[in-house]
Amino acid sequence: MATELRTLLTATGPIDLTSVDARSTPGFDGDKADGKSALAALGPELADLQERLYAGGRAGSTPRKVLLVLQGMDTSGKGGTIGAVGGLIEPQGLVLSSFGKPTAEELAHDFLWRVEARLPEVGQLGVFDRSHYEDVLIGRVRALASAEEIERRYRAIIDLEQRFVDSGGLVVKCLLHIDRDVQAKRLRARLGDPTKFWKYNPADLDERALWDDYRRAYEIAVERTSTPAAPWLVVPAGRKWYRNWAVATVLIEALRSLELDWPRADFDPATELARLDGEESATGS
Amino acid sequence: MATELRTLLTATGPIDLTSVDARSTPGFDGDKADGKSALAALGPELADLQERLYAGGRAGSTPRKVLLVLQGMDTSGKGGTIGAVGGLIEPQGLVLSSFGKPTAEELAHDFLWRVEARLPEVGQLGVFDRSHYEDVLIGRVRALASAEEIERRYRAIIDLEQRFVDSGGLVVKCLLHIDRDVQAKRLRARLGDPTKFWKYNPADLDERALWDDYRRAYEIAVERTSTPAAPWLVVPAGRKWYRNWAVATVLIEALRSLELDWPRADFDPATELARLDGEESATGS
Repeated sequence: MATELRTLLTATGPIDLTSVDARSTPGFDGDKADGKSALAALGPELADLQERLYAGGRAGSTPRKVLLVLQGMDTSGKGGTIGAVGGLIEPQGLVLSSFGKPTAEELAHDFLWRVEARLPEVGQLGVFDRSHYEDVLIGRVRALASAEEIERRYRAIIDLEQRFVDSGGLVVKCLLHIDRDVQAKRLRARLGDPTKFWKYNPADLDERALWDDYRRAYEIAVERTSTPAAPWLVVPAGRKWYRNWAVATVLIEALRSLELDWPRADFDPATELARLDGEESATGS
Repeated sequence: MATELRTLLTATGPIDLTSVDARSTPGFDGDKADGKSALAALGPELADLQERLYAGGRAGSTPRKVLLVLQGMDTSGKGGTIGAVGGLIEPQGLVLSSFGKPTAEELAHDFLWRVEARLPEVGQLGVFDRSHYEDVLIGRVRALASAEEIERRYRAIIDLEQRFVDSGGLVVKCLLHIDRDVQAKRLRARLGDPTKFWKYNPADLDERALWDDYRRAYEIAVERTSTPAAPWLVVPAGRKWYRNWAVATVLIEALRSLELDWPRADFDPATELARLDGEESATGS
């Protein structure tokens, strides 16, 4: 397509999430069946690009590394996206980090300490299921930190991401955007299925009661931390098939932009083949 | 089947790997196409069992955790197995650890220090791509440690695995067994494909020259560390499709043996649904 999806979805200027239809499908012309086919069709290229990245890291031929940040309200489908998109990639290359409630040890450090430790290494595709953004989202809504501290955190996040980019990293930040109706429907589905009870917590409804506060916190966080080095993408996530296709697509676009070649051999293949043949005739095997 | 595959493949008594046909397919009656279909057919049950384990860990309703150890000569297909079997599971539940050459920090500790740190937590399915066994394999063949130290390591490994099992763990140790001819064929394939050069290192042929020493080191390690708590399985890996099917199958058998139920709700679903409905009518959404 002429315009990359990641450009189309990039958040710029003041953000009003109420103006984004959670069930819209920007950049995709088709229905659910088309979307599922399109996702499957992306598999081979995504796997190939990821393997080139991994190979480059192993061979030391590239300094590149990629971080996919997934944020979104409860039931927005962070886990589902990881399952659908991650399933297209070799498990070796995907390093998943889930950020839950900080431990006592983590709280004894700056909020970015645990994040720094989980940043992908050269050659890795790291995926953050929640992230350092929780500290300016729930941190703001629940007043877990002062307003000044939240301000400091926006800047610290920008600095961290810039440093990651400056050392060869590429950041893809996706806000999986749903609305209250989508969440109600998904919570109802969880509450009606005993195999999904473990995903539910009564506190989820307490957080839901603060929907508008969270939405506003997301808008501010996106406005404050969407930088040229690490822009935010707002991905409508009311339709799971679109969400999965969109995240896979922006990831492919990002990986393509790295223009990764396969590492060159630091040995002579013909010599090695001759060694293999010679050794075999010597032992008679 | 009447006898579980993991029982069929369990190593007992003195081990002679030269007597195991790397291209045999014990417990499977069929060809490559059948094997690929059979693997795909295992996907839903494997995914379901893994999700029950993960859910139980999250809900705190089970102390169970599972460790899959993959060992084998170069080109035996540890990575390929992880791709094929891991691809059937949600990425969230699979925690992959690859053990390469120890770092200076790791060498400054006992050999099990880095392993201990990567043991799966409750609810996790951990996969070791190489493992603590390297320290009694290359450790023995290359005389990186004294004979007494190697002896100590066998015992230390048994103790570590027993402790893991005693705290709710289940260990599945698979030796992916190939012979010299299979390796030669696979090395030739790597050397003929520029997209595979990164997997090759001239030192691989130096290790290959020590084939019989490594084979003997594997035999001794398996004999010394195949315990009732953590038995070794010898998986013929000369046929990739059989190897993948066999590892998926023994993993399913192991997970089934845990008899994992979905966690019970620690809330009343009807009450929560009523809260959701009430909150919605109050806000008019």
